[in-house]
Amino acid sequence: MDIDSTAQDKARFFAGAWGRVKALPGKLKAKVTSTAKSIKRLGQDDPRRLTHSLKVGLALTLVSLLYYARPIYDGFGVSGMWAVLTVVVVFEFTVGGTLSKSLNRGFATFLAGALGLGADYFASLFGKNGEPIVLGILVFLLAAAATFSRFFPRIKARYDYGVLIFILTFSLVAVSGYRVNELVVLAHQRLSTIIMGGATCMLISIFVCPVWAGEDLHKVIASNLEKLATYLEGFGGVYFQSSESDGMGTGKSFPQGYKSILNSKSSEESLANFARWEPGHGRFRLRHPWKHYLKIGALARQCAYQIEAINGCIGSDHIQGSEEFKGKIEGSCTRMSAECGKTLKALARSMKTMTDPYSSANTHVENSKAAMKDLKFALKAASLENADLAAILPAATVGSILVEIVKCVEKISEAVHELSQLAHFEKETVEPTVSPEKPPQLLHRGIIQPVLDGDSTANDNVVITIHEIISTDSPENEKACDQHQVPKPGKKIEAL
Amino acid sequence: MDIDSTAQDKARFFAGAWGRVKALPGKLKAKVTSTAKSIKRLGQDDPRRLTHSLKVGLALTLVSLLYYARPIYDGFGVSGMWAVLTVVVVFEFTVGGTLSKSLNRGFATFLAGALGLGADYFASLFGKNGEPIVLGILVFLLAAAATFSRFFPRIKARYDYGVLIFILTFSLVAVSGYRVNELVVLAHQRLSTIIMGGATCMLISIFVCPVWAGEDLHKVIASNLEKLATYLEGFGGVYFQSSESDGMGTGKSFPQGYKSILNSKSSEESLANFARWEPGHGRFRLRHPWKHYLKIGALARQCAYQIEAINGCIGSDHIQGSEEFKGKIEGSCTRMSAECGKTLKALARSMKTMTDPYSSANTHVENSKAAMKDLKFALKAASLENADLAAILPAATVGSILVEIVKCVEKISEAVHELSQLAHFEKETVEPTVSPEKPPQLLHRGIIQPVLDGDSTANDNVVITIHEIISTDSPENEKACDQHQVPKPGKKIEAL
Repeated sequence: MDIDSTAQDKARFFAGAWGRVKALPGKLKAKVTSTAKSIKRLGQDDPRRLTHSLKVGLALTLVSLLYYARPIYDGFGVSGMWAVLTVVVVFEFTVGGTLSKSLNRGFATFLAGALGLGADYFASLFGKNGEPIVLGILVFLLAAAATFSRFFPRIKARYDYGVLIFILTFSLVAVSGYRVNELVVLAHQRLSTIIMGGATCMLISIFVCPVWAGEDLHKVIASNLEKLATYLEGFGGVYFQSSESDGMGTGKSFPQGYKSILNSKSSEESLANFARWEPGHGRFRLRHPWKHYLKIGALARQCAYQIEAINGCIGSDHIQGSEEFKGKIEGSCTRMSAECGKTLKALARSMKTMTDPYSSANTHVENSKAAMKDLKFALKAASLENADLAAILPAATVGSILVEIVKCVEKISEAVHELSQLAHFEKETVEPTVSPEKPPQLLHRGIIQPVLDGDSTANDNVVITIHEIISTDSPENEKACDQHQVPKPGKKIEAL
Repeated sequence: MDIDSTAQDKARFFAGAWGRVKALPGKLKAKVTSTAKSIKRLGQDDPRRLTHSLKVGLALTLVSLLYYARPIYDGFGVSGMWAVLTVVVVFEFTVGGTLSKSLNRGFATFLAGALGLGADYFASLFGKNGEPIVLGILVFLLAAAATFSRFFPRIKARYDYGVLIFILTFSLVAVSGYRVNELVVLAHQRLSTIIMGGATCMLISIFVCPVWAGEDLHKVIASNLEKLATYLEGFGGVYFQSSESDGMGTGKSFPQGYKSILNSKSSEESLANFARWEPGHGRFRLRHPWKHYLKIGALARQCAYQIEAINGCIGSDHIQGSEEFKGKIEGSCTRMSAECGKTLKALARSMKTMTDPYSSANTHVENSKAAMKDLKFALKAASLENADLAAILPAATVGSILVEIVKCVEKISEAVHELSQLAHFEKETVEPTVSPEKPPQLLHRGIIQPVLDGDSTANDNVVITIHEIISTDSPENEKACDQHQVPKPGKKIEAL
């Protein structure tokens, strides 16, 4: 029996081994296929990655061939390789990244080169024996001080690469052992090749399919708001309906896109840092308020934390029997989350079109606040005599967090409005925007009447209300109204 | 009147300007003082920053002087500068960072150098005219492909720098325009200087006040658990007391340390990446389960999100009149959060001492679960006839989120226990732990009734429960019990 089982084991082992050997080519094929697929997916996710790779190849080939071409090569000497080095190290995905690194590298090389020359001259005063000691001390002190400065968050964020190159160039120049007049020639060559390499990178990154960090940041923030909106718009329906159908919300059918926002801080910050280095482009001026985007991003994250908490509550909503209570708060909760979602959608849309979000978003904010009050009334009115508080709790918690979300969304709306003023977004309410589509947005939810409407001519009617609302709430908008010679309410009433 | 006011304006203007000029030295002084203070603070926050700066200075001075010293300089030629360059670029704050960059640089240089030689030879086959074209195409293709590979998350995380150096060296070697036999000499020189620079960095970073990324990760995760614990331990007391005294919790007196955990993902990931490159050090072996720390970190973040939601609820707890209800749930809520805090403290302590947290943490987990049940009873028992649900809501929400936190803390406890098994932490439960201190911890809070319970033998009693709990939940502990010849339940009863 024992021998038999051993023989069986052996047979099984060899069969297994042979199977594995036979499967090898198949596995290899599967591996290659999966790699190819992931390459394809990587390129499809963001086709700019492919363009970027080709751009780097192009820049490098250009500079390499310059280096390879004898006439230039002889002019620059071995220093020509610094152009190649610069291209490889400096070319980043975004224009801002490339500019920041190129400029950092250029200035740091220049500064450190000059300082290195000075150090060389200073050390030579101490004679043949003293020179290496003085140079060693200088290199030590400067390297230590510069390295320490890299721990300052502000320097780390903006000039980290510059400090690195500063240390590098200073030590190279100081310890090169050349005499000063030779060094000047060398420094000149090196600086000019670095400028050549840097300029190639900058030109290619700006003019060949540019990827602007600023535009990316703008889009990322807008799409984050949209992700939050998608969750909130869907939330009410799915939560209350699913619990009606199967007695528990599993939380599985909710779009989980908002989760990516939870950890978005560092990427947003680096984009904002790069964006500062970029020249004006497209719809963004040179001094676009990039910092303000971080504020909106932080608020969006705050909102995402709240959603995360709500999402947790849903998953654990296993207590039966809260249906009655749920039914009571369903209306107001659904409206709160839906209006929050609409606010965020409107804000995201206004960011995308770069128009002032005030009127469109504000209506939804007011609606969500009204729904919040409804919830309070519903809670007060709810008779709790035969209710079990433990059963009520999950739904009540959802309501309570929704209240927080409404507040958070209001803050986001204010922040986006602030941004629209800082960045001089177009006013959507003023020009020909008082078109038949606009008023429905303002007076939303089925109470809208068809409106007759004029702009600078005198025969206005109902529409004036819109201007009234705006002008009382926002001095900025009032000014805009004046600029466009919209007749003052008083005059209009005469015209009616 | 008008002239008078203009004169006054002028006088005021000049006085102001003069004031500003007079204030300049003061401002400068203030600026210098504040800078000096921030430098001091930076050094005091983490004295290793200062050590790191000095280490970089030391490494650079050593390598520079080697380069400066003629005999070696003549041996290596201009390539000596590559040693300086390597030190500047490769020396990172942590040992893992330095090792990862050094090894990446070394291998990439070697590989790309060999490939570059091959490319040079291949291109030379195409004659004088074809050579630059073929070389250009090769550089373009390789640079584009390598750049694209940097977008793969896995390559980005571990080999980003290696790929960069690969592109750099390949283009430099391929386009250098030297003949192959010259190139071999050059490549040999360059590789040996890079190895020299890299080795200097590695030795200094490992042997002079090393900063281990792995140890840092270990400490960061433990201290994150502690931050959560501090909040939770203090929460119950502050929330319920402050609201008793002034009717509203402002949320200001809570320790806000947990906020740093919300955005800790990227720093934890980079530490884990670096830790993988480190050799065994101190209490960590070579293949320490660093990846598992990320799991604990993610759970801690999850818990921090919940705390953030609670913190938000507190700040907005402006509704009066919920005192009665608050009083009813105060006991269980305070106990829940306190026990969660104690669990996390125990877990953090066990991580710090690298002992198995099972018994110490598990007691608190069980206690917090018991408190959770108490809360449910309290909620069921709460008479709500004359209560206003809107007033109850904030406190109820806090209770509900605390329930989520209890669940989250339980998961953290499991994850730390898993880690302790993967990393072979010492067992704290086995040796003299069946001491008079243990049972009180297990039978904490006096609600546990002596239990009659049989497993293999029939006549057990209270004390045995302890072993029963451990042995049924964790096979690992059961084995440990056996190893240390703790008498089996049956035997003990005989001894009792």
